[in-house]
Amino acid sequence: MQELIERIKHEGIHVGGGIVKLDGFLNHQVDAALTERMGAEFVARFDGVLSAAPTKIVTAEVSGIPAALATARLLDIPMLYARKHQSSVMTDVYYFAQATSRTKGGEINLLISKRYLDESDRVLIIDDFLATGSTIRALASLVEASGAELLGIGCVVEKPFERGRDRLEGFDVPVETLARIEFDGDVLRVY
Amino acid sequence: MQELIERIKHEGIHVGGGIVKLDGFLNHQVDAALTERMGAEFVARFDGVLSAAPTKIVTAEVSGIPAALATARLLDIPMLYARKHQSSVMTDVYYFAQATSRTKGGEINLLISKRYLDESDRVLIIDDFLATGSTIRALASLVEASGAELLGIGCVVEKPFERGRDRLEGFDVPVETLARIEFDGDVLRVY
Repeated sequence: MQELIERIKHEGIHVGGGIVKLDGFLNHQVDAALTERMGAEFVARFDGVLSAAPTKIVTAEVSGIPAALATARLLDIPMLYARKHQSSVMTDVYYFAQATSRTKGGEINLLISKRYLDESDRVLIIDDFLATGSTIRALASLVEASGAELLGIGCVVEKPFERGRDRLEGFDVPVETLARIEFDGDVLRVY
Repeated sequence: MQELIERIKHEGIHVGGGIVKLDGFLNHQVDAALTERMGAEFVARFDGVLSAAPTKIVTAEVSGIPAALATARLLDIPMLYARKHQSSVMTDVYYFAQATSRTKGGEINLLISKRYLDESDRVLIIDDFLATGSTIRALASLVEASGAELLGIGCVVEKPFERGRDRLEGFDVPVETLARIEFDGDVLRVY
């Protein structure tokens, strides 16, 4: 997605350790119009699986929510976000999986209420980053645990050098990413 | 907003202690089409301040994001969400405020990068709940700390019995809420 690639090139902040902050339009301040166009791009990329009539977009809080919501709205289906943080009102029964987060440090818990996902659902996962694939794999395993059918996985930005795509091969679904970042030594390459 | 009132009446789950879970369309599974109409309703309610040309929608992660994003998209301005959770990539300088969360237990930190909010901004705060007003007041104090002008505060659901509105009086801006919930003993009343 050329517009996104340009934004990353011009506004991405390399903070070291292979981490690029996109806080200007993706992860803190959110460009609502760009987000809408990302949603449209995901809809176009998943054209091949739309005949299976997805029923839910699944993402993880926090920063996957905008792109997931835009995609859900364009497909006229609900968006469901896995919770990472417990609260006293989480009184349902949940599907539970763990992922490793490098930026948050350590393990994160992902929970989806059994009330909102079951074997009648067909799911597209949409999230912001595909890096090591740990979070996406945890989301996909939640979908699998529910008995729902996983139709595809879409991420805004992929970091191919962290090989997340390899960890998703077992799910045997299309994986679409809108931009990729690599490092040539210290030089950021976006494509 | 009648549609929202009906959804709360039919799908709200009273878990005790004056807390109503709206996980079916607002706080876990998100109804993307309803969210869009909430955004349109906020735009209509804030008609009186739109002549001041808001530059940013400000909210708090997580559950304020969908309604805030919908409003931002309709006004064609960015949405900025205060972070609650530290991560290793938070290398900017931040405005910082604390709020008390009953459902999360204890104090929560709210941070907004100085890079994305300053005295040139005019802000609408949009969030999901106005209960005790603690989170909204913290957001408003972040806006104030940045030197930006606060134009108004909009929340999806108000719990008037927790008197959050009283705590916002000092900011002297319009406060708009799309539905209100009260309890008559154990009976939920929505209006």
